[in-house]
Amino acid sequence: MKRILLLGVILIPQLVLAQGDSATLRRIRDEIMMRGACYDNLRVLTKTIGHRLSASPQAAKAVEWGERAMKDAGADKVWLQPVWVPHWVRGKESLKVRMPGSNSFENMRMLSLGNSRGDGKVVEAPILMVQNMEEFDALSPQQVAGKIVFFNYRFRQDMVSPFQAYGDAIKYRAFPPTYVAMKGGAGTIIRSLSSGMDDAPHTGMTRIVDSIRKIPSVAIGNLGADRLEQACKKGTVTAQLLTSGRMLDSVLSYNVIGELRGSEFPQEYVVVGGHLDSWDVGEGAQDDGAGCVQSIEVIRALKALGIKPRRSVRAVLFMNEENGARGGKAYADSAKSKNEKHVLAMESDAGGFTPRGIGMEMPADKKARVKGWAPLFAPLNVYDFEREEGGTDIDPLGKLGTPLAGLNPDPQRYFDYHHTEQDVFEVVNHRELKLGAAVMASLVYLVSQYGL
Amino acid sequence: MKRILLLGVILIPQLVLAQGDSATLRRIRDEIMMRGACYDNLRVLTKTIGHRLSASPQAAKAVEWGERAMKDAGADKVWLQPVWVPHWVRGKESLKVRMPGSNSFENMRMLSLGNSRGDGKVVEAPILMVQNMEEFDALSPQQVAGKIVFFNYRFRQDMVSPFQAYGDAIKYRAFPPTYVAMKGGAGTIIRSLSSGMDDAPHTGMTRIVDSIRKIPSVAIGNLGADRLEQACKKGTVTAQLLTSGRMLDSVLSYNVIGELRGSEFPQEYVVVGGHLDSWDVGEGAQDDGAGCVQSIEVIRALKALGIKPRRSVRAVLFMNEENGARGGKAYADSAKSKNEKHVLAMESDAGGFTPRGIGMEMPADKKARVKGWAPLFAPLNVYDFEREEGGTDIDPLGKLGTPLAGLNPDPQRYFDYHHTEQDVFEVVNHRELKLGAAVMASLVYLVSQYGL
Repeated sequence: MKRILLLGVILIPQLVLAQGDSATLRRIRDEIMMRGACYDNLRVLTKTIGHRLSASPQAAKAVEWGERAMKDAGADKVWLQPVWVPHWVRGKESLKVRMPGSNSFENMRMLSLGNSRGDGKVVEAPILMVQNMEEFDALSPQQVAGKIVFFNYRFRQDMVSPFQAYGDAIKYRAFPPTYVAMKGGAGTIIRSLSSGMDDAPHTGMTRIVDSIRKIPSVAIGNLGADRLEQACKKGTVTAQLLTSGRMLDSVLSYNVIGELRGSEFPQEYVVVGGHLDSWDVGEGAQDDGAGCVQSIEVIRALKALGIKPRRSVRAVLFMNEENGARGGKAYADSAKSKNEKHVLAMESDAGGFTPRGIGMEMPADKKARVKGWAPLFAPLNVYDFEREEGGTDIDPLGKLGTPLAGLNPDPQRYFDYHHTEQDVFEVVNHRELKLGAAVMASLVYLVSQYGL
Repeated sequence: MKRILLLGVILIPQLVLAQGDSATLRRIRDEIMMRGACYDNLRVLTKTIGHRLSASPQAAKAVEWGERAMKDAGADKVWLQPVWVPHWVRGKESLKVRMPGSNSFENMRMLSLGNSRGDGKVVEAPILMVQNMEEFDALSPQQVAGKIVFFNYRFRQDMVSPFQAYGDAIKYRAFPPTYVAMKGGAGTIIRSLSSGMDDAPHTGMTRIVDSIRKIPSVAIGNLGADRLEQACKKGTVTAQLLTSGRMLDSVLSYNVIGELRGSEFPQEYVVVGGHLDSWDVGEGAQDDGAGCVQSIEVIRALKALGIKPRRSVRAVLFMNEENGARGGKAYADSAKSKNEKHVLAMESDAGGFTPRGIGMEMPADKKARVKGWAPLFAPLNVYDFEREEGGTDIDPLGKLGTPLAGLNPDPQRYFDYHHTEQDVFEVVNHRELKLGAAVMASLVYLVSQYGL
């Protein structure tokens, strides 16, 4: 009898705490699923502004939009944090190919690789196809000189995680402009880093080295690459490649920050964010309008429910993730100079798909603390706390010692849309987007209450 | 030393077995992800045939297609199993409403509920809105008489599982035609069972009772329902409702069955299936073209890899799941009359989305056996073996004692498309579809090797 009573005394506070958290997370989830503003916010961002590469007029409009959306969400304080961003412009571009046995050139869909340079003149040269980097490495400068090298490396569809396949293939976007130039090549064409079974070319940042000659560098879609592969096997394919990518002077832009002031530890911060810029095609809906509107939703839901977090919560829309990552750096620089204590930084930059887990980059004891909350995430069908993951924009904070977390949504569709014309509002599902926001709000709430 | 050696002897066979299975499942997965035919098969089914309600000419074409696809997949034996199916035709239909303060009628998007009847004449009557069944139950026949009752019950967006929300709402599609008729109503309009934030009406089977007067019974989309709700709050809304649903004589149709003969226990069967029929709108892509092409893919992948299952594997494309479930019954009747031993029946009828788990309806010891294989499914990110689930078409087999399993894909998008014009090929993602097929093929392989 006494033992049972004692057990009761010990268990009750813990039980009450767990039930209280569970009930609060249920309220947060219901608020977002039933009255969430993130889907409507995404519609406005994507449909009235559209794509928004750093330094573009649309990026400036997106900053204004973000500031307004943070205020509408009920942030106690909203401000813009200056960031100087690179100003790349794509300009006119085209790719024409003459197939073996044909007398005429036909157009192929293409996109210049981000940050690559072109002089606006047509380069006409035969195409030299290689299947992978090893094949290219085996070529002598004599073999490459004057050729347009086609890297026909395929995105690994056998990998269950397309993010792993992206990691596997990324060197084929990063290095061709420099490697081909170093061997005297005239230009380079890559098979897009794409899981799509379509002809959409995928852009994305490539590496440009000042001291190395700049050559036209473009991506083509999977169907175009299939066609080109067949043609190259038959005979000589000649390409006319025109690109005009230019890097102009840096431009002053901004991270957008909204804050809910902590009731007990206002000087301790929990950051949740996405990136506001996108590539200059499509509407930047999954990459990363989704992460932005989800982060704003965290503020909105807590405010709407009258939840006063013990630690301050900041939603941050980072500028320039795509072609410079300057926003993340500017935020961390500011945090360091003000000696701000960041308890956690969480990013959503893998699309607004059904959430499946929370990745972490933090010491084992803090990971264990988050994993201890796993039962609270089970009603959201979020179960995977094993992955090592943060985000490009929060990485500089991580280097200062801040524990990092990344939302892990279902990854299967992301690289169908990533950096293409197809990344538009319509490929985002409202329930999937909101569920992701609910997961982010749940973790932010728990960390704001209990720290790590 | 001796103890270590003994441990080695004991562990090695188990290890070899597990590694062997793991390697085989990896081969199956790679075959499907890299050379899978299911996505192309789905394109043909949806784009050359389209929707295919039981007894329609398209359903007959789908049977021919299925037979051919099974042969192309390499089935040892393909046959058609006769099924008499109901023959419902929608006919002409329209809904016009006159809003309060307006002199004219405006069109609203609508679909008659499946199997409902109409005489092709316009019924003009005032609309009586109720929010739920309790409100309707409280109405007297005098209040309902001569009215068109609008059931404005909302699909529960707060439920994390839309399938749970569907279960919660299904009585609002099943019962209004009979309940309203019994109280003397002139017709009924329901808010669609839809998670979509759009105006698409969702059809689906309603309950028709011979002895009860038939009334026009239709569904409207969420946006239309929102508009109608506002109007009904303002004043009297009058509707002109025209429906023409008719039930014609039953028609002879078929289940399509493809078999790989078992090498050791050919008289024991592992069934995997989906349903070939669809509603008479859209293309029946997620519901359930996906399940059909995935089931065919199981046969194709095993055959392509030269895997000879120990037990016979049957892929079954069931006819008439949507408005009669006669195909499932015909299959079970045949199995019973031939005294066939079915070791497992698995169905995929929740869409071709990323697989997350395998539901089961079977005794605890067999469930434990399947759960014991969970580590083999971890590379596919399939982790949930807790749900009680089979499928409509295999349910009659279950009643004969066959263990049942259901593929559990991510559920968030299904009820955006379900039974609408929007359920088309384009809303199916090729990787998600193939991953589901890989999970099905994996379970079928394991059960065909080891039984349950």
